Amino acid sequence: MERTDGRKNDQLRPISFVPGIAPNATGSVLAICGNTRVICAASLEAKVPSWMKAQGVPGGWLTAEYSLLPYSTLERKARDISRGKLDGRTVEIQRLIGRSLRAVLDLSKLEGYTLWIDCDVLQADGGTRTTSISGAYIAAKIAVQRLIAQGKLAEDPFTDSVAAISAGIFDGNALLDLCYCEDKDAAVDANIVMTGTGCFVEVQSTGEEATFSPDELAALIALAKKGIGEISELQQKAILTGMAD
Amino acid sequence: MERTDGRKNDQLRPISFVPGIAPNATGSVLAICGNTRVICAASLEAKVPSWMKAQGVPGGWLTAEYSLLPYSTLERKARDISRGKLDGRTVEIQRLIGRSLRAVLDLSKLEGYTLWIDCDVLQADGGTRTTSISGAYIAAKIAVQRLIAQGKLAEDPFTDSVAAISAGIFDGNALLDLCYCEDKDAAVDANIVMTGTGCFVEVQSTGEEATFSPDELAALIALAKKGIGEISELQQKAILTGMAD
Amino acid sequence: MERTDGRKNDQLRPISFVPGIAPNATGSVLAICGNTRVICAASLEAKVPSWMKAQGVPGGWLTAEYSLLPYSTLERKARDISRGKLDGRTVEIQRLIGRSLRAVLDLSKLEGYTLWIDCDVLQADGGTRTTSISGAYIAAKIAVQRLIAQGKLAEDPFTDSVAAISAGIFDGNALLDLCYCEDKDAAVDANIVMTGTGCFVEVQSTGEEATFSPDELAALIALAKKGIGEISELQQKAILTGMAD
Amino acid sequence: MERTDGRKNDQLRPISFVPGIAPNATGSVLAICGNTRVICAASLEAKVPSWMKAQGVPGGWLTAEYSLLPYSTLERKARDISRGKLDGRTVEIQRLIGRSLRAVLDLSKLEGYTLWIDCDVLQADGGTRTTSISGAYIAAKIAVQRLIAQGKLAEDPFTDSVAAISAGIFDGNALLDLCYCEDKDAAVDANIVMTGTGCFVEVQSTGEEATFSPDELAALIALAKKGIGEISELQQKAILTGMAD
Amino acid sequence: MERTDGRKNDQLRPISFVPGIAPNATGSVLAICGNTRVICAASLEAKVPSWMKAQGVPGGWLTAEYSLLPYSTLERKARDISRGKLDGRTVEIQRLIGRSLRAVLDLSKLEGYTLWIDCDVLQADGGTRTTSISGAYIAAKIAVQRLIAQGKLAEDPFTDSVAAISAGIFDGNALLDLCYCEDKDAAVDANIVMTGTGCFVEVQSTGEEATFSPDELAALIALAKKGIGEISELQQKAILTGMAD
Amino acid sequence: MERTDGRKNDQLRPISFVPGIAPNATGSVLAICGNTRVICAASLEAKVPSWMKAQGVPGGWLTAEYSLLPYSTLERKARDISRGKLDGRTVEIQRLIGRSLRAVLDLSKLEGYTLWIDCDVLQADGGTRTTSISGAYIAAKIAVQRLIAQGKLAEDPFTDSVAAISAGIFDGNALLDLCYCEDKDAAVDANIVMTGTGCFVEVQSTGEEATFSPDELAALIALAKKGIGEISELQQKAILTGMAD
Repeated sequence: MERTDGRKNDQLRPISFVPGIAPNATGSVLAICGNTRVICAASLEAKVPSWMKAQGVPGGWLTAEYSLLPYSTLERKARDISRGKLDGRTVEIQRLIGRSLRAVLDLSKLEGYTLWIDCDVLQADGGTRTTSISGAYIAAKIAVQRLIAQGKLAEDPFTDSVAAISAGIFDGNALLDLCYCEDKDAAVDANIVMTGTGCFVEVQSTGEEATFSPDELAALIALAKKGIGEISELQQKAILTGMAD
Repeated sequence: MERTDGRKNDQLRPISFVPGIAPNATGSVLAICGNTRVICAASLEAKVPSWMKAQGVPGGWLTAEYSLLPYSTLERKARDISRGKLDGRTVEIQRLIGRSLRAVLDLSKLEGYTLWIDCDVLQADGGTRTTSISGAYIAAKIAVQRLIAQGKLAEDPFTDSVAAISAGIFDGNALLDLCYCEDKDAAVDANIVMTGTGCFVEVQSTGEEATFSPDELAALIALAKKGIGEISELQQKAILTGMAD
Repeated sequence: MERTDGRKNDQLRPISFVPGIAPNATGSVLAICGNTRVICAASLEAKVPSWMKAQGVPGGWLTAEYSLLPYSTLERKARDISRGKLDGRTVEIQRLIGRSLRAVLDLSKLEGYTLWIDCDVLQADGGTRTTSISGAYIAAKIAVQRLIAQGKLAEDPFTDSVAAISAGIFDGNALLDLCYCEDKDAAVDANIVMTGTGCFVEVQSTGEEATFSPDELAALIALAKKGIGEISELQQKAILTGMAD
Repeated sequence: MERTDGRKNDQLRPISFVPGIAPNATGSVLAICGNTRVICAASLEAKVPSWMKAQGVPGGWLTAEYSLLPYSTLERKARDISRGKLDGRTVEIQRLIGRSLRAVLDLSKLEGYTLWIDCDVLQADGGTRTTSISGAYIAAKIAVQRLIAQGKLAEDPFTDSVAAISAGIFDGNALLDLCYCEDKDAAVDANIVMTGTGCFVEVQSTGEEATFSPDELAALIALAKKGIGEISELQQKAILTGMAD
Repeated sequence: MERTDGRKNDQLRPISFVPGIAPNATGSVLAICGNTRVICAASLEAKVPSWMKAQGVPGGWLTAEYSLLPYSTLERKARDISRGKLDGRTVEIQRLIGRSLRAVLDLSKLEGYTLWIDCDVLQADGGTRTTSISGAYIAAKIAVQRLIAQGKLAEDPFTDSVAAISAGIFDGNALLDLCYCEDKDAAVDANIVMTGTGCFVEVQSTGEEATFSPDELAALIALAKKGIGEISELQQKAILTGMAD
Repeated sequence: MERTDGRKNDQLRPISFVPGIAPNATGSVLAICGNTRVICAASLEAKVPSWMKAQGVPGGWLTAEYSLLPYSTLERKARDISRGKLDGRTVEIQRLIGRSLRAVLDLSKLEGYTLWIDCDVLQADGGTRTTSISGAYIAAKIAVQRLIAQGKLAEDPFTDSVAAISAGIFDGNALLDLCYCEDKDAAVDANIVMTGTGCFVEVQSTGEEATFSPDELAALIALAKKGIGEISELQQKAILTGMAD
């Protein structure tokens, strides 16, 4: 079987990260993965969530918000505010982005602060949640380095880098980095989040009205590991570029 | 290390399923796993969601709702309606329950119907989402058999059974079926959903501000597989009991 | 005229109270009246409502919440959170439960505390509001005695017991304790709340698109008085049982 | 004991009804009871509520809405829309107004129509709900007569008139028509709704953190009966005046 | 062209202001402009908005709220709370009323207070926003003078009076003070707010799916200036009357 | 006085329009005015708003939505959905954008369609509403030409072009195109919308807790006219570029 865009089964789409898309944010990047484009921004707020205060939890926090801009999809998608509430998919994704970044953060070094991550999808073609995570790390890392340079943070709270990619079983084949037309018909859909040093942060593998075997799970994980290695290198370069601006 | 309740690392808590807790539902069961108790009920509605109609999707649907009753936790939890919206955790759980059951359903055999699954937690001590899934299958299966007996459904839409259990890394050990005090301090928390015939439906493994290795992932999956095998047998018995009522 | 379930006009349905249904609550009971079943729970919160603070009102408070669980009715009822707001009937009922319990409470003995009452209907067959009140008193009384035993409260704030029952005019007859099929066609529907010592707390008598005479009102009140006497005795026994657990 | 405004215990405050306050409504009246003033309006809508259509209920409907205008109270009251929802008191009152008018309406003569009743309190000094009911009947009756004159309705759907008044136990005395300063300190507060021909529509008697005896209930009902007789006469005159305009 | 009500192009409708419509407000007036009637009330609250506190802004504030009562229009208009949110037109109008009054207020003389302006339309026939502004000034001025007399305010914070009127291009003619039937078909609709001393506070001129020339704008402004001069005189008289009550 | 960025009083900031920022929209442009950047997109939906259907209004419609992205401001701005509703400023702006574009549209040529305009501010430095209008026209015009090319529209519904700019009185001087630091301290703030052929669409001039004279209004309008002439030329070029892509 050949993929619609001619890629090999273990090949990523063209990926790039363009820092500085939103100059008023402390750190920002346009994360591009094939035809998927996500604006990722990081901003510091000098307070922690009310539940941390109420429970007396020490340290700082990182919160992520995710949104499909109305014109990101081929058919216009109504804004969250028009429907009055976040849909379940959005809630799941922004919780995943937040957990993924907190897994490589020493929150004690953000004492008293919340680092806000915003991921707004400008163009959606599959993989918006994983592209958001990979971009969010860059935006946050640039923000953190600027805050250190400005004397607002004493130390870098990041303990590792983090990136994410999808993989899936489509027509019996294990494929890396599904585009939308592959994703919507995949029997199994996995999203894997790993650190730059190769540890897992999150493994989510879901049968879409289907089930899967241990071997299939292993194949998806192996593909994701390869892809995340490549993305991690691109992240490092983008951070250097972003800091040089 | 000994577990607080004296269990072995690969041992489930005492599990039982009591059918008939909510007689006005088409099928219902009180699912008990240690000190966790969940009311699971299934009801049939003679219409499909509006998005299915709008998109012309054939077949039927299954939707799940999940709630912590206010007195299920040691500190009273405000109702969703008092806070005005579902929290992110609730949204994730009810989406997971729905996906898990749909994975073993032939929706074409529910043509024109929605099967509603309700899971209300009466007492929470860890594992409420996995207990909900295991109980929901029983409630739904009993409901389906009654609907067939009543002539409302022509055939059983279930293609397999489905059950779920948690596992986690706690203090360096891989443990099966975490109770609340283990769950809240676990470094890694996995929820695994499998069919009665041993296929995966969903694998979710999350580092809680921590990461994990491939070997750790493998150990968690092996524990879950063992536990789900035991639960599947209990489910079959409960369904027989429930149908005999 | 014979009643559908063969009861005499002044006869209650079989009533029982099963303490301990929700072990994480401070006090709880499953209140059963015929085919109506309500989970009643009481929990203490160490603060008072914001309006009491704002207005400088001394003492404590008691607040009640009521809900029909989705599977309590023969046709599944959408959750409050799905419809976005409480319906008018629910608001009226939870205000009635709260007022009824506060009428037998010395709020000054709850200084600084709110006693939360939760009534969740597991099965609905008429009389859910009166069954809730009778059960709520048991749950609250058990809770209060435990709080005294734990040293959290100094004195019992209850000054009397409280119970409730319905009565109505159906087909020209005054009937005690209407089940759903009687209630929905009754011309007049009354809910009466009385203390264990025989005082009125609340009298609500409503013509359902009908009117009624002074004699009819008197007959309804007399029936209710008889029924509440019987319920009060069952309450005392259930409290003793609950405290012995 | 003398009442603060010098009235006898069984004396109403000065009551008057001024038709035509809102000329764009089909019928309207300014209902004045002492210092309580309520704008009451009736408007016809050529459709029935969606639940009637869904359930195939024949006939028409009457719905009431009630609101305290922000400047009706001595301390400004925030609008419902600012708080995002109706408070429980408002919900109870508008349901009571609706039930009271429907009790004297033959809904089959409103086939296909909803009669909307709006009661907006311009000045609040106790008795706003009973003044609303008495005024709403006038507005609705005027509206109905105009609709008949315009050929929009074939027959008068009203089967009787309806009016309401409060009574209460204050400092041990049974008083008719409580003003705000009496109402807020009354031990027992009753709202009685009766028809022009002397039948009960609704009896609500509530101990405000207090209880009451059968004799006290009887005294309150007797006072209310006297007051409603007087109000009924004023209503007939106002309707004639309103129709003559 | 003759206007439907026989007015000249530069002629106002009959305008009058009746103070005291809502006695519990600190200041109130019924503002009447032809068949448009608006209840305007002013109330003082002893706190400032939370954003002023948060930002440390000194002085006081004035906030306005506007509403069409459901029976103010020929076809009943659903309440804001029934639709769950303010519509865009309402938001625009209440912001305009607030800005207009703040333009003639020295907010430093309201230190620590919010002056609430409420405008509720009793009858709508075009010009409700401008009638609201002209009436709101009267209500607020009466309120302020009473607060000074009561010693709650030290000085009059008003620096000038303020009034408003509409003008528009209808069928090629520039008309003053559009009634509803003129307004809905006008090609250009202007609302002008001016002080008693003849300065502009706000000029809003909008082509309704049409455009307009500089000369047309000049004509509309000239008409408005004439009309506002006349209204200003009526305002002064109404304030004197209101204070004499 | 010299402006902070060295501009002359009648000089625009550097303005450019970059088409194609959101490829899944039918037409899109990144509108840049100094440090203000707005993503403008146009999408066609094959239905009209429900109020048009209900009222039987013929033709099509154009609706605009506007949002400040959270990272567009120096201090992060919470999303609309987090606050639960649109703020008043947002509502005003999106209504203004919609009216401005509809003024140059022949809606009868959009029969059965809604043209959605989305304006999301990526970076805010004053003039976001006027930049949105100028950009929205480009996005909509590109979209319309594509829809004609695709045969979805028969004719171009635009009758003219439309653009907008701000002007204000700052420190006694009339300035064109205020940046944020000028805007926030301006005594008078005007937003002017004009067609490419020099007609007014909307004139809004507001004293910010200040008033203004006829001469000042004339000066602001003259400045705006000059600026809009320059912007109109840039719009034509951007449309040609966008269509050539």
